[in-house]
Amino acid sequence: MGDRPAPDIRPAVRSGETADAYFWRTREVLAAEQRNPVVTMEVFPSRAGVLCGMREVLALLLPELPDDAEVWALDEGERVAPKEVVLRVTAPYLSFGLYETALLGYFAHETGWATAAAECVEAAQGRRVVSFGARHVHPDVAARMDYAAIVGGCVGCSTLEGARLSGVVAAGTMPHALVLIVGNTVEAALAFDRHVAPEVPRIVLVDTFEDEAKEAVRVAEAMGERLAGIRLDTPSERGGVTIPLIYEVRARLDQAGASHVRIFVSGGITPDRIRAMIAAGAPVDSFGVGSHISGAAPIDYTADVKAIEGRAIAKRGRIPGITANPRLQRVR
Amino acid sequence: MGDRPAPDIRPAVRSGETADAYFWRTREVLAAEQRNPVVTMEVFPSRAGVLCGMREVLALLLPELPDDAEVWALDEGERVAPKEVVLRVTAPYLSFGLYETALLGYFAHETGWATAAAECVEAAQGRRVVSFGARHVHPDVAARMDYAAIVGGCVGCSTLEGARLSGVVAAGTMPHALVLIVGNTVEAALAFDRHVAPEVPRIVLVDTFEDEAKEAVRVAEAMGERLAGIRLDTPSERGGVTIPLIYEVRARLDQAGASHVRIFVSGGITPDRIRAMIAAGAPVDSFGVGSHISGAAPIDYTADVKAIEGRAIAKRGRIPGITANPRLQRVR
Amino acid sequence: MGDRPAPDIRPAVRSGETADAYFWRTREVLAAEQRNPVVTMEVFPSRAGVLCGMREVLALLLPELPDDAEVWALDEGERVAPKEVVLRVTAPYLSFGLYETALLGYFAHETGWATAAAECVEAAQGRRVVSFGARHVHPDVAARMDYAAIVGGCVGCSTLEGARLSGVVAAGTMPHALVLIVGNTVEAALAFDRHVAPEVPRIVLVDTFEDEAKEAVRVAEAMGERLAGIRLDTPSERGGVTIPLIYEVRARLDQAGASHVRIFVSGGITPDRIRAMIAAGAPVDSFGVGSHISGAAPIDYTADVKAIEGRAIAKRGRIPGITANPRLQRVR
Amino acid sequence: MGDRPAPDIRPAVRSGETADAYFWRTREVLAAEQRNPVVTMEVFPSRAGVLCGMREVLALLLPELPDDAEVWALDEGERVAPKEVVLRVTAPYLSFGLYETALLGYFAHETGWATAAAECVEAAQGRRVVSFGARHVHPDVAARMDYAAIVGGCVGCSTLEGARLSGVVAAGTMPHALVLIVGNTVEAALAFDRHVAPEVPRIVLVDTFEDEAKEAVRVAEAMGERLAGIRLDTPSERGGVTIPLIYEVRARLDQAGASHVRIFVSGGITPDRIRAMIAAGAPVDSFGVGSHISGAAPIDYTADVKAIEGRAIAKRGRIPGITANPRLQRVR
Amino acid sequence: MGDRPAPDIRPAVRSGETADAYFWRTREVLAAEQRNPVVTMEVFPSRAGVLCGMREVLALLLPELPDDAEVWALDEGERVAPKEVVLRVTAPYLSFGLYETALLGYFAHETGWATAAAECVEAAQGRRVVSFGARHVHPDVAARMDYAAIVGGCVGCSTLEGARLSGVVAAGTMPHALVLIVGNTVEAALAFDRHVAPEVPRIVLVDTFEDEAKEAVRVAEAMGERLAGIRLDTPSERGGVTIPLIYEVRARLDQAGASHVRIFVSGGITPDRIRAMIAAGAPVDSFGVGSHISGAAPIDYTADVKAIEGRAIAKRGRIPGITANPRLQRVR
Amino acid sequence: MGDRPAPDIRPAVRSGETADAYFWRTREVLAAEQRNPVVTMEVFPSRAGVLCGMREVLALLLPELPDDAEVWALDEGERVAPKEVVLRVTAPYLSFGLYETALLGYFAHETGWATAAAECVEAAQGRRVVSFGARHVHPDVAARMDYAAIVGGCVGCSTLEGARLSGVVAAGTMPHALVLIVGNTVEAALAFDRHVAPEVPRIVLVDTFEDEAKEAVRVAEAMGERLAGIRLDTPSERGGVTIPLIYEVRARLDQAGASHVRIFVSGGITPDRIRAMIAAGAPVDSFGVGSHISGAAPIDYTADVKAIEGRAIAKRGRIPGITANPRLQRVR
Repeated sequence: MGDRPAPDIRPAVRSGETADAYFWRTREVLAAEQRNPVVTMEVFPSRAGVLCGMREVLALLLPELPDDAEVWALDEGERVAPKEVVLRVTAPYLSFGLYETALLGYFAHETGWATAAAECVEAAQGRRVVSFGARHVHPDVAARMDYAAIVGGCVGCSTLEGARLSGVVAAGTMPHALVLIVGNTVEAALAFDRHVAPEVPRIVLVDTFEDEAKEAVRVAEAMGERLAGIRLDTPSERGGVTIPLIYEVRARLDQAGASHVRIFVSGGITPDRIRAMIAAGAPVDSFGVGSHISGAAPIDYTADVKAIEGRAIAKRGRIPGITANPRLQRVR
Repeated sequence: MGDRPAPDIRPAVRSGETADAYFWRTREVLAAEQRNPVVTMEVFPSRAGVLCGMREVLALLLPELPDDAEVWALDEGERVAPKEVVLRVTAPYLSFGLYETALLGYFAHETGWATAAAECVEAAQGRRVVSFGARHVHPDVAARMDYAAIVGGCVGCSTLEGARLSGVVAAGTMPHALVLIVGNTVEAALAFDRHVAPEVPRIVLVDTFEDEAKEAVRVAEAMGERLAGIRLDTPSERGGVTIPLIYEVRARLDQAGASHVRIFVSGGITPDRIRAMIAAGAPVDSFGVGSHISGAAPIDYTADVKAIEGRAIAKRGRIPGITANPRLQRVR
Repeated sequence: MGDRPAPDIRPAVRSGETADAYFWRTREVLAAEQRNPVVTMEVFPSRAGVLCGMREVLALLLPELPDDAEVWALDEGERVAPKEVVLRVTAPYLSFGLYETALLGYFAHETGWATAAAECVEAAQGRRVVSFGARHVHPDVAARMDYAAIVGGCVGCSTLEGARLSGVVAAGTMPHALVLIVGNTVEAALAFDRHVAPEVPRIVLVDTFEDEAKEAVRVAEAMGERLAGIRLDTPSERGGVTIPLIYEVRARLDQAGASHVRIFVSGGITPDRIRAMIAAGAPVDSFGVGSHISGAAPIDYTADVKAIEGRAIAKRGRIPGITANPRLQRVR
Repeated sequence: MGDRPAPDIRPAVRSGETADAYFWRTREVLAAEQRNPVVTMEVFPSRAGVLCGMREVLALLLPELPDDAEVWALDEGERVAPKEVVLRVTAPYLSFGLYETALLGYFAHETGWATAAAECVEAAQGRRVVSFGARHVHPDVAARMDYAAIVGGCVGCSTLEGARLSGVVAAGTMPHALVLIVGNTVEAALAFDRHVAPEVPRIVLVDTFEDEAKEAVRVAEAMGERLAGIRLDTPSERGGVTIPLIYEVRARLDQAGASHVRIFVSGGITPDRIRAMIAAGAPVDSFGVGSHISGAAPIDYTADVKAIEGRAIAKRGRIPGITANPRLQRVR
Repeated sequence: MGDRPAPDIRPAVRSGETADAYFWRTREVLAAEQRNPVVTMEVFPSRAGVLCGMREVLALLLPELPDDAEVWALDEGERVAPKEVVLRVTAPYLSFGLYETALLGYFAHETGWATAAAECVEAAQGRRVVSFGARHVHPDVAARMDYAAIVGGCVGCSTLEGARLSGVVAAGTMPHALVLIVGNTVEAALAFDRHVAPEVPRIVLVDTFEDEAKEAVRVAEAMGERLAGIRLDTPSERGGVTIPLIYEVRARLDQAGASHVRIFVSGGITPDRIRAMIAAGAPVDSFGVGSHISGAAPIDYTADVKAIEGRAIAKRGRIPGITANPRLQRVR
Repeated sequence: MGDRPAPDIRPAVRSGETADAYFWRTREVLAAEQRNPVVTMEVFPSRAGVLCGMREVLALLLPELPDDAEVWALDEGERVAPKEVVLRVTAPYLSFGLYETALLGYFAHETGWATAAAECVEAAQGRRVVSFGARHVHPDVAARMDYAAIVGGCVGCSTLEGARLSGVVAAGTMPHALVLIVGNTVEAALAFDRHVAPEVPRIVLVDTFEDEAKEAVRVAEAMGERLAGIRLDTPSERGGVTIPLIYEVRARLDQAGASHVRIFVSGGITPDRIRAMIAAGAPVDSFGVGSHISGAAPIDYTADVKAIEGRAIAKRGRIPGITANPRLQRVR
């Protein structure tokens, strides 16, 4: 994995415009009352998962905090337990109180995506998993979703921006639209091969017009060694990608002397379906996962005030004082 | 509801950086092959819901299309059926093909939020529902989520940016942090009352230090007619907000002569819990809803090529040609 | 429906070789003891269904009974209730006791098949149902199964012998073997059309080599008005026949000007799937049903001695004496 | 187990009258087109089971095939896995194509019965299981059902014809009809003992008129050492044969000095009930099983063309070419 | 129903020995602190049911309360809703505080029994239900259980003491022990008839030695018109009393000219089984119910202090002050 | 555990007034017929459990039996298996027949309670369990219930009478009524401490007026080392006692320097909730259990005549003669 650029905080986040309004009112009240105590706040997730969002959270917070603030954190990508403290900040309240909404949001959404990706990667037992879900999320977070998927273990993602954030190269085969416009799968494959940069692997979508097994064999015959793989994406209206279909395509490709052609499956892929395919020995090389990652529910986080001016305190229902977590590293 | 500003398309979306990479490759191939046919594409959701995202979609697409393109669409906020066509574009493919990822993402994420909000609003049978979930989503879409919640029927939302996009005033009570820093619920309430703009309703959070019913009565006694409402947000560690608790708080407030004080509940509110509270006659005035809306799964949309140069076509599994939908309005 | 030949009783049944051995021993004992009382026996099913097997039962029994025997029966094809008496015989025991096993077997197996067929016919609400299950039963009863399916309401069946017993013409399209040997669906269809008797409807199987929708259109283009229908039989390995596939094939045939071509579906058809297809409005004209009918569990029958020499009697658990059933008709 | 006679193929099967009509049409078309290629067909079951029907299948096919045909098969009674090839024929298509319906039917029906019998035998852990279900199937296949039950592991069956086919002696006790006609269980037992051949074991049915335990003791007292066993067949109307009833009858027989008398149970016996009885230690010596075996659903088989003139081929959804199965033996 | 004697309060209850110890300690503390305020206490059940125990509760409380105490109550046998106040006492706390344990216990146990009895009575739709469960409860409360069963609608009970408390005559047939000692059901019936008072109905238990139907007919033949009924109590070891058994016994009695003999069933009777028997039209005249009533779970009651010296008060979780219930009657 | 007084048999039990009426009739009939054979009766439970009631049963029976009677029994508190004989009496029938109802009742009710208590004790893995359910049972058996709970393993009970029967000291904290009358938890605790005997542990109920954690800390601060424990009894209306509440109270007490204060929980405690608390490591010291023990269903017992004058006999469904049980001890 290559370098990742420093996170970029949107101006409206930095200005506090995305904060819950009651934090603005709290700021007003405390300022008017001339109170700005040093507060210790701890942040923890409601469920277990793969921590994601820490790079943006620190990029937002650190510039705002005074030099003598204390910040402890876990690393991006670590496995976290339910209610495990991932971030502890000790600083004057008004220096960071306004950012509670934003930092919980970074963590919640990105941890949700990274954790769902990790479930797929774990199920795939070493086979490649690629994030294909940009089309299911708002384009203002599509790249963040792809980044989180890669933190969760995916080897690639489909958007340019997501790939850039993650330090990888964007992945992709060809859309149905290209095949429909060209009007023929074999010709579309050959045109693709003619014009696309040589380092892009030739993976051809074979379910647009005809039977998948037939088209796979035809494309393999037309492209020979240049064909890297085929993608199966049978729609649910045609029964989806079944395990016997994968076996059959593999067998027919092998019988046609195209054993080098890899099989890439997509369409409604979930950890359960990955496990079923692997348990049945289905010859899949890569999985393209969309909704399971992009539509994953956020994993909610909570921020609790646990001490004020060094004195342990907490709201009802929480235990006052600092929660021990030896895994935390001091980052300021 | 006030005016809503024109949607603002992020530059990386406009430039195509958030597109799936294979649309860039398609563009390359077709350009090299000198093919740019007029294509008719239809977009439809996988499930029923409240359509949301159309304003951003049109703001993205219309400037890119030639004058003779044809665009048919449904309105923001309309109820849509599964597989109902919500948008039909007929234009040279290269003028819009790159935006497929983004337009599906606008629709999917925002329709998911708006639909979940509408479920709560419907369950609440006229009681007020406010969107409180900004803390569970990435801050780059928190305002879009709040906007969608209001399209779905919420009367307010918690973020400044979301309120601005939606043409409403941001709503909020007070956070636990304020009460903890002041050290006492009654004093926090009085400080809030002293300093916050007079048009902000005084709604006091009463579960920070003491029993909710006791604190509610104490705050009511201290603030008298100035107290507009109290918020119950009992954490799950203390059993959450139960129906008998709401009854008891109402009864104790009434016995203390504070019948004008409204009750606002939050914390794990879902349509099922709203329905249970209403079925039991619980005296709730407003519901603050977080995760049910902000964590709603996107409602996936699909874009299908249905004609090329006027000739009906479709990939396997779909029916070639235009799908009739008399509800569509021509927007260009 | 045409004439049906008189039932043919296999010699081994007539000779008693298929009887349970203990009836032979009973015969020995009673003969040795010189007892042969006039006995009244009643026969009834364990579950509700469509009575079938009566023609064979009467063909077996009547020649064996003395002239003064009394026999009451319901008609082939009548609906019967659980425990409703369908046959009552009063005659010297030794004249018919040996046939208890056979007559229960005729009733059980054939009523099971007829009842399962009637479930499909009822679900199909007027659409044609054809019995296609001969391949799942022993060939010595395949024709009896087809006969029972027609008693249950099917309009046709696949075997020559079954059609002869039922007074109908055998139905059928073409097997995958023919298409495979010819090597091409269109050519196989044309060869079939060239050589088969003109009164046989041209129904072509379209899933052998290529995508169903494509092949259907190609065959329709090749055969024009001569094509009566196409058969969809997609194997489970390819997702089976889904409802959207039926819609798509219908739409593509219509777009190709082949609205006269009927759609025949087969493969795992059950009453539940028929109901689902009809509820979804799927444009099916005929259903070919196999295992649901041919693999239906027999509906067990019981024969009880209810009177001996006119005196009411019964074994423990049964009520002595004749059971009233005004629907019975005297047949001797 | 004694000798089994060579299978007897019914003339209507040999003549092809039980074939699906479309095989006759295929024959017509191919003959007219002068095509009769050498075809390889494989036959496999849909579920695991005990293979049965092979003797009849080979008796049907072998006389029809030319000398240079190749036939590979598994043995009658072998355990087979789902989709395991049990038969492979390579021969000119017209020499055997017409028999596809019949051979699948032999396998399906008989494998279903044999497999169900094997489930009972396995559950019985060495206790004797006897096939008693002739009364639930058409008498034209009752003997085949009994034969299959014995292939599945039963030690006996109730019909004379079934016993003859299987090379065993028919088993049986006495029917309720005998006891009712004689009018008294003890007298019926004594009459049976007087007149039936000495090698037939004296097993007396004891639930016709009185309480089972009482009648068992009375019969044991009347017959002494001559009594081999008693049969319990309590009808469901009286609660069926319960485990405590078996214990009680055993105890009362033992207290009456009749420890040599074996207990035979029948009536709704299934593998689950056998297992429950054995787990509870119920002193049962033999089980008479009816509907579980005779009403077992057929296990469907499929015949696939996998090569034509030595070239691998298959319909969509199946893998072209021969499927390896080292367990197959060449039979021609 | 006849007169019921005044309830008899056991001395250890009156002395407070059955109170929870902490009420003794409360008494000590309050006495030492010289506090004995007038307190209003309300008592309510946790679930709906048939109120029972009020007569004992009032017999315990009223003698202890000063003349100016106020007591409001519902009547024994009334249907009560969940949390409906059934008793309200306003009096100096020390005059009754010690009895909280006892009064809740009277209500809980007896309401549980009465409610379970009412379920059976309702299910029986007018057929007679008799309480037969004394053998399942401690003999110190067996009579109270029988009394509660009659409050719940039973027409009789089995214990002498229970019958006396309820103002009815004890019901009963004959035990298995009598039949076993006499050694013969018919002789036992005749001996019973000879010696028992003429007003006792002759109901004979017929399942001790022989088949129920046989014994019922023999007893009917021996006793003629003197036989009032027979009792079926088939043990679970013999399949329990099934619906067909009841039909058969009725039919055989009618065939023997004993249509006047009523059928009484017992053994594991529950409302569900009563409903099933009645739905099936089973000719039952009376039901003897044991465990369903005697083993019914108590319906817990709660006593809440709702006012002290006229001032509304309550513990957390309850609403201070008197709960309106217009159904309450003032009893002092 | 201290000494337990000899059981006290209520006069109405001794006189037979609590017997089922049919035992009185049997007595009448046998006396009139001058039959009083020596009978062997065996008593066994329907389900497994902790035997309880034997002391009362023997106290009832032994004085009534002649000197040469034989009585075999298991000990109070032993674990018994389903249908295991716990008592065998051989004596003239009329000397004990009347007591069948009472002895079954003693066993059934007390074994039910003891078994339920043992389930809690086992779940608690060494933590203390106290019987608090007197308020849910009739006060005439409340002490018997407490006694059975202690036989089942509880270390204490709440009633004076129950404690006396069991040889323990009654346990208890303070009721809500005391706190409500005093008007303040801390003052109530101090008054309790001033006046109650020094050997009574100071365990204070902390949920009456305010938040449990706050009140616990206040009481601990006011009473210092004198405070032995606090009791959590949060009502279901406030979410009940949750596991995080226990943790929080423990943590806040520890932070307040009150680590010596033990935590006692009550309110809806069941074995499942005990197991959940222990599995989660919740710092509970004692459990107060009410309804789970006091509302436990009786475990029904059966008494069977197994021999008369030494001759094995039994009713239908049971095995005649004595049932071996080497664990029985002869007690006369």
